[in-house]
Amino acid sequence: LRRGRPTVHKAYDEATAILVGDALLTLAFNVMARNEVHADPAVRVALVVELARASGLGGMAGGQMLDLAAEGRFEPKRALSEKEIATLQAMKTGALIRFACRAGAILGKADMAALADIDRYGIAIGQAFQIADDLLDVEGDTKTLGKAAGKDAAAGKATLVTALGLQGARARLKELLAESDSALTRFGTKADTLRAAARFVAERRT
Amino acid sequence: LRRGRPTVHKAYDEATAILVGDALLTLAFNVMARNEVHADPAVRVALVVELARASGLGGMAGGQMLDLAAEGRFEPKRALSEKEIATLQAMKTGALIRFACRAGAILGKADMAALADIDRYGIAIGQAFQIADDLLDVEGDTKTLGKAAGKDAAAGKATLVTALGLQGARARLKELLAESDSALTRFGTKADTLRAAARFVAERRT
Repeated sequence: LRRGRPTVHKAYDEATAILVGDALLTLAFNVMARNEVHADPAVRVALVVELARASGLGGMAGGQMLDLAAEGRFEPKRALSEKEIATLQAMKTGALIRFACRAGAILGKADMAALADIDRYGIAIGQAFQIADDLLDVEGDTKTLGKAAGKDAAAGKATLVTALGLQGARARLKELLAESDSALTRFGTKADTLRAAARFVAERRT
Repeated sequence: LRRGRPTVHKAYDEATAILVGDALLTLAFNVMARNEVHADPAVRVALVVELARASGLGGMAGGQMLDLAAEGRFEPKRALSEKEIATLQAMKTGALIRFACRAGAILGKADMAALADIDRYGIAIGQAFQIADDLLDVEGDTKTLGKAAGKDAAAGKATLVTALGLQGARARLKELLAESDSALTRFGTKADTLRAAARFVAERRT
């Protein structure tokens, strides 16, 4: 289940889910390279390179691979350390969230210092998203969530909640929100939408 | 088997094969967008758009989807017409071969007429590759091929060889070689490597 509806995987089959994923990933590159994204082709090319990094071996696909390895597919299953979990999550879901933030700065031709702050913000909300997601898996119920609650625990999956404990994870989430806020200081009220996005990521219940 | 060795699918598992495919597809976009490909970012962006078209819903991924549908996964299985088989193959394998040819012309800043001829060449060798592949499945043996022979027939898969018959398919392959040759006329001896590539596609035994 996702958002209360069966996943493509369940409604159709695995091969279809994979192909839809391939087609959508490819579509993202197509969209990014189009004229209407930015008049300057050098900007569009920079976005393509960053999207490729975020979704490839050093990002989403590589993180998913680490996840499979952690499930014990290729080596004996063992508990991941807090650092290993953080690396896995930074790749699997964090890299694309970070890319989305950086893309805005690149499109706006931000200077290096501003890009670095947006980058800090993107890293922080990526981690916050994942901790919030792991907390919801423990604290939420399937009906509100729209996906099965308690799935990670049932699968014996290591998350930062299991590594840090509930209180530790909640404290870490707070720190990350403070970090994302501090990264936005220089932008003043212009960054209010980003501040709202950070709160949404941390406080969502579904 | 491929080239006498187990596929990733067999040596590891399906999830790994899929992720490696995702990572390699993403890497192609990364490579295409890099400085060293061409000094002009407008050229690199054009390549990214064409690669996305060739590999996405209107190309490889879409063709693979049509292939799954033809196997009877979503609707009752039925024999595809010659035209349907040609469309499926043009998407699944033809689009990327065509892209590889067009990419050379785009990198060389070919004029529209020259690009159109390279395009004709790419379409012709894409079709020739597929017919040769289907003929090898019927005529080849597993040891020389490095992959299982007779697999398509065993799976009841419609190919142009089943649609046209062996003689018909061989005749079509000859026509396609003539077409690829005629598309290269304007380039004179500069296109000898492309002529050799066309012969290789049609005459390979492995």
